Amino acid sequence: MDSIVEQMHTFFEPKAVAVIGASRRTMKAGHVIFKNFVINKQRNLFKAKLYPVNPNEKTIQGFPCYPSILDINDEVDLAVIVVPAKIVPKVMQEIAKKGVKAVAIISSGFSEVGNHKLEEEVTAIAKKAGIRVLGPNCLGVYDSKTGVDMLFLPETKTLITGDEVVATPRPMAGPIAIVTQSGAFGAAALDYLSGKQMGVSKFVSFGNKADVTASEMLAYLLHDPKTQVILFYAESIDNGREFMEVARKVTPKKPIVALKVGRSEAGARAAASHTGSIAGSDKIYSSAFKQVGVLRANDLEEFFDMGKALAFQPPVAGKNVAIITDAGGPGIMAVDECVAQGLNVKKFSEETIAKFEKLKQEGKIPRFATNLNPVDLTGSVTSEMFEEGTRILFEDPEIDGIIVLGLHHLPALQEDFVDRVAELSKKYTKSVVACDVGETEMALHIRSRFDKLGIPAYFSPEDAARGMAALVNYGMYLKKCGQFDQYFESFMKRKNMS
Amino acid sequence: MDSIVEQMHTFFEPKAVAVIGASRRTMKAGHVIFKNFVINKQRNLFKAKLYPVNPNEKTIQGFPCYPSILDINDEVDLAVIVVPAKIVPKVMQEIAKKGVKAVAIISSGFSEVGNHKLEEEVTAIAKKAGIRVLGPNCLGVYDSKTGVDMLFLPETKTLITGDEVVATPRPMAGPIAIVTQSGAFGAAALDYLSGKQMGVSKFVSFGNKADVTASEMLAYLLHDPKTQVILFYAESIDNGREFMEVARKVTPKKPIVALKVGRSEAGARAAASHTGSIAGSDKIYSSAFKQVGVLRANDLEEFFDMGKALAFQPPVAGKNVAIITDAGGPGIMAVDECVAQGLNVKKFSEETIAKFEKLKQEGKIPRFATNLNPVDLTGSVTSEMFEEGTRILFEDPEIDGIIVLGLHHLPALQEDFVDRVAELSKKYTKSVVACDVGETEMALHIRSRFDKLGIPAYFSPEDAARGMAALVNYGMYLKKCGQFDQYFESFMKRKNMS
Repeated sequence: MDSIVEQMHTFFEPKAVAVIGASRRTMKAGHVIFKNFVINKQRNLFKAKLYPVNPNEKTIQGFPCYPSILDINDEVDLAVIVVPAKIVPKVMQEIAKKGVKAVAIISSGFSEVGNHKLEEEVTAIAKKAGIRVLGPNCLGVYDSKTGVDMLFLPETKTLITGDEVVATPRPMAGPIAIVTQSGAFGAAALDYLSGKQMGVSKFVSFGNKADVTASEMLAYLLHDPKTQVILFYAESIDNGREFMEVARKVTPKKPIVALKVGRSEAGARAAASHTGSIAGSDKIYSSAFKQVGVLRANDLEEFFDMGKALAFQPPVAGKNVAIITDAGGPGIMAVDECVAQGLNVKKFSEETIAKFEKLKQEGKIPRFATNLNPVDLTGSVTSEMFEEGTRILFEDPEIDGIIVLGLHHLPALQEDFVDRVAELSKKYTKSVVACDVGETEMALHIRSRFDKLGIPAYFSPEDAARGMAALVNYGMYLKKCGQFDQYFESFMKRKNMS
Repeated sequence: MDSIVEQMHTFFEPKAVAVIGASRRTMKAGHVIFKNFVINKQRNLFKAKLYPVNPNEKTIQGFPCYPSILDINDEVDLAVIVVPAKIVPKVMQEIAKKGVKAVAIISSGFSEVGNHKLEEEVTAIAKKAGIRVLGPNCLGVYDSKTGVDMLFLPETKTLITGDEVVATPRPMAGPIAIVTQSGAFGAAALDYLSGKQMGVSKFVSFGNKADVTASEMLAYLLHDPKTQVILFYAESIDNGREFMEVARKVTPKKPIVALKVGRSEAGARAAASHTGSIAGSDKIYSSAFKQVGVLRANDLEEFFDMGKALAFQPPVAGKNVAIITDAGGPGIMAVDECVAQGLNVKKFSEETIAKFEKLKQEGKIPRFATNLNPVDLTGSVTSEMFEEGTRILFEDPEIDGIIVLGLHHLPALQEDFVDRVAELSKKYTKSVVACDVGETEMALHIRSRFDKLGIPAYFSPEDAARGMAALVNYGMYLKKCGQFDQYFESFMKRKNMS
């Protein structure tokens, strides 16, 4: 395993990178990729050496250009290949001679279009020389810390009007790693996470998986100190046994959320024609994931929602959820979805009910507020009421997790309820997720404020319930394998340090 | 029925409105509501007469103030009550004496807090005088055309920092009516629809439903020329027979999308404590909705997504869906969700496949593009390819609806593919929905451009599939009751006029 970690590490933190097929022509992938590295070097983010290789150019972006990798008078450990498929074998021969350890083949035109023979030729050269190959036909790697950025999708695009707009943003640094078979999905994920201000540690897209597998990347990420949560998109998993073995090692330490598409027969057929892989029965995937603690998302939105919950909050040790709200209707939606997810929304204990009654007598919450579960603070809600009510839920030992539905529309509620709830949550170890509904200024402000203070906020009550369910399901798995306390402790330590 | 329509009409298009409890004090609901009317009068949107009633003031916002409604020397057909619950009976007596036809009681403090007797007293006065009552304990009415706006939730809020932000926006005028039991949910819906640039015709929130029922409002909206799609939120439906009868009349003319919460036992219990109503078995609701063609949404997001599809596109006459994409992975997600929704994603006919093969031979789409279903134009996609590929799908008589997944990230795709697809769609009557994934500039631009051109765009492939499913399910119902052609024709006529 350790040698695999070392091998994979070269893709993310190389000492010297050669971009083979670097280009001066702005529309070329070889231009975008080389420029990514140059810019990250200027930012002092990318600290390794950088060499453009292209027999037709003298210099590119101010860097002296080499006709072949063999002309570089220095050791190179990582090569990025962006040349037409048919000359990749020749390039690989030179790379092998040069003693390069890791190669990302971005170029397409291999098994995905039926050119199996060409792909086999390339992998045979690599195998003989002990080179690890990512791809071909992939987006490669993006690392927010080391500045490795092989994405040939430019950060901005120029519209027909002449305006330049953000098209494929690179997210800020953060705890989420993305491991994806599909490049297009990967790009969309980066765009989504950037817009939602969610940070990414590492990104890797596999394409044809001619050599390096998802399982090897998962094994590597287990040891990556920057990665806390792994979002894993797959259309097929080739070596099930290897995957199960690796996942079993990773999940007690870091949650893996999987979006495995091709659930339906028609979807599996589409997956087969997309990457040429046979997907196998969907039920087998579900039960395999469950067995090794991989959390399966049902769709794209849930995939990100689960990742957000697990990145922001600790796992939950039981299924009893309390909901506090100022909006009766959305409160019911959250209950419905909690129940659909297998969580319990029980009536509170007599002690907790008595505490709410006391608050009413003291005039601290409205006397007609509901103190069942959900607690409904009604339209007369204030920030103080959210604080006082949530405190009681934190103190109740029977409650495992809390959902705060703070719809900002009610007249007397001020935005500081977010800060009050977040401040309170620091005194307890209980997990909290939040929700505000709306798509204009104040709703966006409330959700982003919650996020900033470490409480994941969602745009619908059902999404919040799904986020909570991810925390509970992961907690249940950790308990089952006796790792809850250890994970919980390391999570809290990390949280307190940040 | 006609008399009910006339009665309900007064709530939306009164000739003279008295706001009883209008106030100069900015924190009061009576201030916000009266100010809404004044502002809409200044905008020349609200054209009816307006009278503030408050015995403690001489003028409010420049309007002479009346001690009692009886002091107004003019006919008044609509009264909005915003005084403390305990004086509502006295106010109602005066209203009855004045001969007012319709009253919205915004005030709370009635059956929702156990004051059944007070509520009964008020409704008895109304009944005796032939007054129709909306509420009590409700948000009342918002009409984008007549400027009636009883919402006491201010459009903007001032943050602690002193910044003023949009808090409860009023959406622009448009085809969607919102009928909601919960006020808080209603406010959230307005916020959501505003942010998503979706237009609203009428909004009505019921509260305790002491008199006017949801069924009466649905009956009214059937005859409202501004309303094309009805979004209906309910925690309970009191008179099932009446509802079924009305819905059966409405749904062949206008789709009703229902979000009925309290599906789970715990949710139903919460609903009961929220509005005091007994929800009944959830399965009964599902089968009743199905029987009368009401489309049921599973959660908040689907509720709006379905409404958007039905507002933008005509119903679909069959279950065969074609998907065209530049992103294999998201294409598979769309297939999976289509199948889960009961739609067919079949292999194309030989003729259609031959057309795609011809495009390949002509070099108009990549030779390694997939022409099964989904059509995958691959990462080499251009705007022309989307146009040419989609044209073939429009021409195939076996295909009922089309999903366009245009992920903008791919390098050679320009934003004009949106205009090309929209232009093409005008030549055919087939329904189209679209999707682009991402939350930064270009994704937001692509989705909003699709929306503007009448093609509903979604942020995930699954949401797009759910939108298409709403069009298909509504189409199936219309066919079942022999109303498809008639609805389709009137939809297309409306679309061509706008």
